[in-house]
Amino acid sequence: MIEILDVIGVFVFAISGVLTAINKKLDLFGVFIIAFVTAVGGGTLRDVLIGRMPVGWMQNLDYVYIIIVGYLTALFFRNYLNKLRVSLFLFDTIGLGIYTLIGIEKGLEYGLHPIICIALGTITASFGGLIRDILCNEIPLLLRKGTIYATICIFGGIQFFILRKLGLESSINELVTSLTIISVRLAAVRYNWSLPVVSIKN
Amino acid sequence: MIEILDVIGVFVFAISGVLTAINKKLDLFGVFIIAFVTAVGGGTLRDVLIGRMPVGWMQNLDYVYIIIVGYLTALFFRNYLNKLRVSLFLFDTIGLGIYTLIGIEKGLEYGLHPIICIALGTITASFGGLIRDILCNEIPLLLRKGTIYATICIFGGIQFFILRKLGLESSINELVTSLTIISVRLAAVRYNWSLPVVSIKN
Amino acid sequence: MIEILDVIGVFVFAISGVLTAINKKLDLFGVFIIAFVTAVGGGTLRDVLIGRMPVGWMQNLDYVYIIIVGYLTALFFRNYLNKLRVSLFLFDTIGLGIYTLIGIEKGLEYGLHPIICIALGTITASFGGLIRDILCNEIPLLLRKGTIYATICIFGGIQFFILRKLGLESSINELVTSLTIISVRLAAVRYNWSLPVVSIKN
Repeated sequence: MIEILDVIGVFVFAISGVLTAINKKLDLFGVFIIAFVTAVGGGTLRDVLIGRMPVGWMQNLDYVYIIIVGYLTALFFRNYLNKLRVSLFLFDTIGLGIYTLIGIEKGLEYGLHPIICIALGTITASFGGLIRDILCNEIPLLLRKGTIYATICIFGGIQFFILRKLGLESSINELVTSLTIISVRLAAVRYNWSLPVVSIKN
Repeated sequence: MIEILDVIGVFVFAISGVLTAINKKLDLFGVFIIAFVTAVGGGTLRDVLIGRMPVGWMQNLDYVYIIIVGYLTALFFRNYLNKLRVSLFLFDTIGLGIYTLIGIEKGLEYGLHPIICIALGTITASFGGLIRDILCNEIPLLLRKGTIYATICIFGGIQFFILRKLGLESSINELVTSLTIISVRLAAVRYNWSLPVVSIKN
Repeated sequence: MIEILDVIGVFVFAISGVLTAINKKLDLFGVFIIAFVTAVGGGTLRDVLIGRMPVGWMQNLDYVYIIIVGYLTALFFRNYLNKLRVSLFLFDTIGLGIYTLIGIEKGLEYGLHPIICIALGTITASFGGLIRDILCNEIPLLLRKGTIYATICIFGGIQFFILRKLGLESSINELVTSLTIISVRLAAVRYNWSLPVVSIKN
């Protein structure tokens, strides 16, 4: 189950990378790099920080193949993808839920503290887009005012560890937490939930 | 002693991150990430380059807690921090001195050459701000014309290894070198010392 | 042979870093960091991704010395380097050919799949410039429309593995593939070969 959703996540993140890159007037190589980084950048950063090398996509070529398929798909159907905007958003949201859990699980594997596991889940789910934005020379969307995104991963992670403490079986917990993250993200976009921006009074 | 100063360094760098981020109209999550990166980004890059993983803050949660305290402090007192500008500058300067030595010590632990140790000290002390500036989409302050900063770490590092060669006891050397870095930084700001900018004549 | 060309590559990439940085009004420290990153940034990223730490230049100080010499050379002769533009371009092209092969060899050493080895060759040869551009707050040249660059590394890498499959002796293969990359790069600049930029029709 996780495997299928992981595939969908990489595929959709690659497509979202292509769409961002096209608007930046990059050439076909540049577009591919942005697709790649959007899809596996978060997991790569996580692997580097915990010392899991060679990083994930170097040990499992499926990631590379899925990104290539996502890249070609997005290029060929780029004129129709606007009509698929809702489907893309749904997949991206599913990716957010899945990737958070994958990051948390990797942290647990390495015996790290729950707080660090939650950080790893957030990095896995949302820092691919951050690296994409740095390469495109923009202040990362993730850090700017907008509907909440990475914050949902943090709350999802907290819920995961509370349910875990309460003795919930691991695979059920993963499913429940993923669904929570997905639901909250849908609600956040629907009702335009955002975090405040603070300013300094002079 | 080092431990107390390390705490102060992380705390002050986190505050300086919050102040930078507020001016960039980031949301509360974005501000926290910038605070985090400013406080431990240099040490994290150092750990990755030498292969010390999981990186420091993943193995010692105190860093995370101090950053959270620094973050909340800066948010609550943001309207008064301008009045504390001088104190903040002093703490930042103390951080510069301490972090350089921490970086050098890590390099020695790994049996690296003095030149590499000095590079690691400089990275530890000053590259958190560099990563902060990249995330905020600016040319890093560190690289631009201004009063000398990272260069002081390099000179401090050279002094450390000269005194070490002369047989000075390690903990005294650390203290002396930290004080040198702090003093030179204070003098640099007071007398506006800067490195030249070169240009090309046509 | 590889060693001499490696030295030339680091030297020339350091010079190209200095020339880029001077145009950005950085101070002498900033210029040095850009020279350093341009010269060894690609290899450093490769080492981190495969888990070869401490990274290359920390274990072989020759890289540091060559960069310092390249840095000083570029600073002293900066007003004459425009006249050497053609020689610099030739060296940069040689660097591209050599670095691709060095990256591929490192991947083979770590028992990685040919596709990953080609990625590592491309990263080694071209991502130093990408990190340089991020630090200088520009969309990386590598990703934008222009004469093909990184793409040539990929094609060179594919050729290397085809010739390898056909049983060509390793050192001859390295020489042949480097020469191919260098020739294609020269032809690409001469005839202005570029990859298309895609856009979205509305």
